Formats: sequence, structure tokens, C-alpha cells
Amino acid sequence: MADSNSVEALIHALRRLPGVGVKSASRMAFHLLQHDRAGALTLSRALQHAVESVRHCVRCHTFTESELCATCQDARRDASKLCVLETPADQSALERTLAYKGLYFVLMGKISPLDGIGPKDIGLKKLFDRVNDGVVTELILATNFTAEGEATAHVIAQGLKDSGVQITRLARGVPIGSELEYVDLGTIAHALQDRR
Amino acid sequence: MADSNSVEALIHALRRLPGVGVKSASRMAFHLLQHDRAGALTLSRALQHAVESVRHCVRCHTFTESELCATCQDARRDASKLCVLETPADQSALERTLAYKGLYFVLMGKISPLDGIGPKDIGLKKLFDRVNDGVVTELILATNFTAEGEATAHVIAQGLKDSGVQITRLARGVPIGSELEYVDLGTIAHALQDRR
Repeated sequence: MADSNSVEALIHALRRLPGVGVKSASRMAFHLLQHDRAGALTLSRALQHAVESVRHCVRCHTFTESELCATCQDARRDASKLCVLETPADQSALERTLAYKGLYFVLMGKISPLDGIGPKDIGLKKLFDRVNDGVVTELILATNFTAEGEATAHVIAQGLKDSGVQITRLARGVPIGSELEYVDLGTIAHALQDRR
Repeated sequence: MADSNSVEALIHALRRLPGVGVKSASRMAFHLLQHDRAGALTLSRALQHAVESVRHCVRCHTFTESELCATCQDARRDASKLCVLETPADQSALERTLAYKGLYFVLMGKISPLDGIGPKDIGLKKLFDRVNDGVVTELILATNFTAEGEATAHVIAQGLKDSGVQITRLARGVPIGSELEYVDLGTIAHALQDRR
């Protein structure tokens, strides 16, 4: 774009964001340089600061800036319940419901053979050790309801089937506010089977 | 996301990119921090460097790192032809065709009353002075074929109708490789009218 190497370098760097191709990257670079240079500097500093300060909680693997995340440090949480999730964003969604008071284990990924991601890469050994520590009595599998999320849940359930810990899965069913006509058939079948 | 203010600040900063909402921003932040910290630092530096070094060519307004952009400095370009475009990305597209050897004037925007952008904001006064400098003999209007691009082209053509300079517009027609069945009717009508 124009004869500026800095602009070319910026477009190239923006393409490292997931879901951003060369056209989106050009549009973003133009917008920032023409209309929001303050935003560009804010983003630059936020990126650098996050890379420098964000690490993983030693206990649950979620993003945090200290050794232990605030949730793992919170003595009021019910340590007998452990919820397994794929990402910090999923954890954040569950926290916002205010419906869960137990602890978490964030896989920071999911088993995905096509991408070369196996049980080791998502820390299953550590999860299994944690579940067998005698404190946890229920493990809630809250991986996504995608093929990879289901496979991950299956592997975890298999690995812990002799642990004596109760293993549950988030209920599948019709989302609140939706009309049956537009819900996929697999979901309706599950909702019928799990009716209460 | 998790209990990290740095991650929250990063998500907030990513939302300043055009077309990025809170879900995309969360996904981008997770990807960079979990899988591509080097990419995050590269992007941070590219943003800062671009903001510090990129300015506008004093002659044609495009992005450049010097007083005059390389195109305006190039004595081999035909100074009698001046092509008006909306953005450096449009200019880059035209340059890549290798079909144009004249000079450019980049508006860095378009007239858009709804966004409060009028003729002054896109430097039309400066464009008119340039067209009236006695060197330019043809002005090629290459603003986009959108409502705002057409309006901008119309305002420029009106403002220069007594200048004695030939004013042309990029041809409208059927894009190469497209099938008539899928081309919109306005384009087909124009292509028929301008048949050759």
C-alpha cells in the first residue's frame, strides 16, 4: 500500500491475527493510520504489556498475572467440584452466569489429531493427578459440543473411569429463547431424551 | 477473560480494529497469547513504527515515509495525467495492473455527509489547485462505484467543469471472468450502453 515499508510491515503483522486476510489487514492498517493513531499506539502497548505479564496459573492453567489465579486463590470456592474447559473465554462465560462456585481446569486447547494436538499438549496428566488428589468429588466436563470438544471429553472420561470421581457433562438441549423450528435435529433429539 | 487485566486491556484495544467485535477480539487475544507471542510482539512493534514514521505525501496525500512519495518523485511518470482515488489500497490495486503511468491524488476518504465528511476533509481545494496548475490535461476519476464514491466523483467533476481539463471516469462493465447471470442489472445496463 503506497510506498511505505512501515505500512507493508504493519499489514503483514496484522495478518498474524486469526481470521484476518490481506484485505482486512489493509483496511485495518488504513483505518488506524488515517483515523485512529491513538488506538494504534494503545494496541501496541497492550500487546507488549500482555506478552510481558500474562502467564498461566500453575494450578488451573488459565491466563493470570500471578502464580495462582484469583479463582484458585479464593477459599470460598467449592474445591470438591472441578470444571474442565477449553479456553479462558469459555471460563469467563461460565463465570458470568454466577451459577458455578467450584474450581476450574482450563485445557488451553482441545485434542485435535489433525492439528497434531494430543492429550499431552493439553495437560491431561496434570488434570488426572488433580482429580485423584482426594479433594475433587465431581468433575464437570464443559468442553465445547463440537467434534473435537466431544472427543476431548470422551478421552478425559475414559482416563478417569476408575477414579471413583463422579463425571458429568453439561446438559445438551434447546437454547433459551430459540424456536424448535430452527434448532438442529441432533439437539432436539438430545433435549427429548434428557427431558425432565 | 480469566483474571488478567492485561488480557482484558488487550481485548479492549483489539476492538478498535474495524470489524472486530468482542468475540473476535477474545479469539485474537487467546490466539496471540497461547500460540503466537512472537507475532504479538511483531505486531506491537509494527504498529508503533508505522505510527511514528508514516505520514502523507505533501503532493498526493498517500502514505509515505518521506516528504514526497516515490511515485510523485519519479520523473518518468506522465505528469499530464492525474488519477483521483479514495485510499492507498485503491492506488496499490491500480499500480499492480501496470496499466497506468500517470500521477495520483489520494483523497484518503470520500464525501460522506452521514459521517460528517465534506469536500474540505478530503482536500478538494488542493486537488482543484493542482488540476489548474497548467500541467494536468486529463483527470481520471477512480473513486469507488459506491453511492459515496459516485457522489465524490460528481462533486469533483462539477467543481472542475470550467477548468478545460478532460475529466474521465473508469469504465463500468462486466468484470473479467464473471457470468452475466450473476452480474447485477445496473452493471449489465452500463456495459450494454458503453459497448465497443
